[in-house]
Amino acid sequence: MKAIQDYYPPEFAHCFGCGPANARGLRLKSYIEGDETIARCVPLYTGGFPGHVYGGMIASLLDCHGAASAAAFAYRDRGRTMGDGGPAIRFVTASLKVDFKRPTPLGGELIVKGRLTAIDGRKATIALSLQAGDELCAVGEMIAVEYRPKIDSVVDQSS
Amino acid sequence: MKAIQDYYPPEFAHCFGCGPANARGLRLKSYIEGDETIARCVPLYTGGFPGHVYGGMIASLLDCHGAASAAAFAYRDRGRTMGDGGPAIRFVTASLKVDFKRPTPLGGELIVKGRLTAIDGRKATIALSLQAGDELCAVGEMIAVEYRPKIDSVVDQSS
Repeated sequence: MKAIQDYYPPEFAHCFGCGPANARGLRLKSYIEGDETIARCVPLYTGGFPGHVYGGMIASLLDCHGAASAAAFAYRDRGRTMGDGGPAIRFVTASLKVDFKRPTPLGGELIVKGRLTAIDGRKATIALSLQAGDELCAVGEMIAVEYRPKIDSVVDQSS
Repeated sequence: MKAIQDYYPPEFAHCFGCGPANARGLRLKSYIEGDETIARCVPLYTGGFPGHVYGGMIASLLDCHGAASAAAFAYRDRGRTMGDGGPAIRFVTASLKVDFKRPTPLGGELIVKGRLTAIDGRKATIALSLQAGDELCAVGEMIAVEYRPKIDSVVDQSS
């Protein structure tokens, strides 16, 4: 099964966290399953304490998974399918909030989940969580905005 | 001049983002200068677009710098000096919010700054920013909580 990131157009496929074209990156793979998105990974980036994952990695996983989730939910909201041959839908992060609930253990599988809270035009809000086994380690909320090159190009020139 | 992280006790010195003892990590160095903290770095982690820094790295820099800032401001608040021989003060992140203002260019120096917004007992609030040259690329807010092993150990056992 192809992941959401596997449908990213080539110019978006280089992200260290989730770009399929970044051979040195983490290549996070997110999938949509029913009303939620899910990614599984085993990141080996030690936090301040040995034995725990570093906080920035937790934020990274939520960020990459959240942007993928926003795209997947937007396809569904518009009655489209990823890879349908139409213009690719791609979101970028406007804001990300992470609440760290407990230290995240290093070395085991982490499960990142996303749910669509709201979608309105180019803006999507995604509720995120990160768990190790059954233990909830972090929750987050992302506001993502659809990237549209022509519109953004106009905005850039006027600012 | 020693950085804030250079005063972290050994059991806290392993963070991928800022641990002086993590030879494979980024080893971010934060300094306190007047009323603000500052760190400079050149992270080479590509975002979705080539030529820009990946979002998770921006969150990571704010997270590591924010936790260091909280510790440095707490020393000052208590009239203490880092490395004074007393018990080390160390904060962990309770929550981090990042607002991405514009794409962050890859390859140049980034400047991360922190300011103390509030400090009350074990809790510190830090306002954060990340700029490339004079361009503000992201702002953030962290709520950090002082780590006290004995207290946290008691809490852990009762939960």
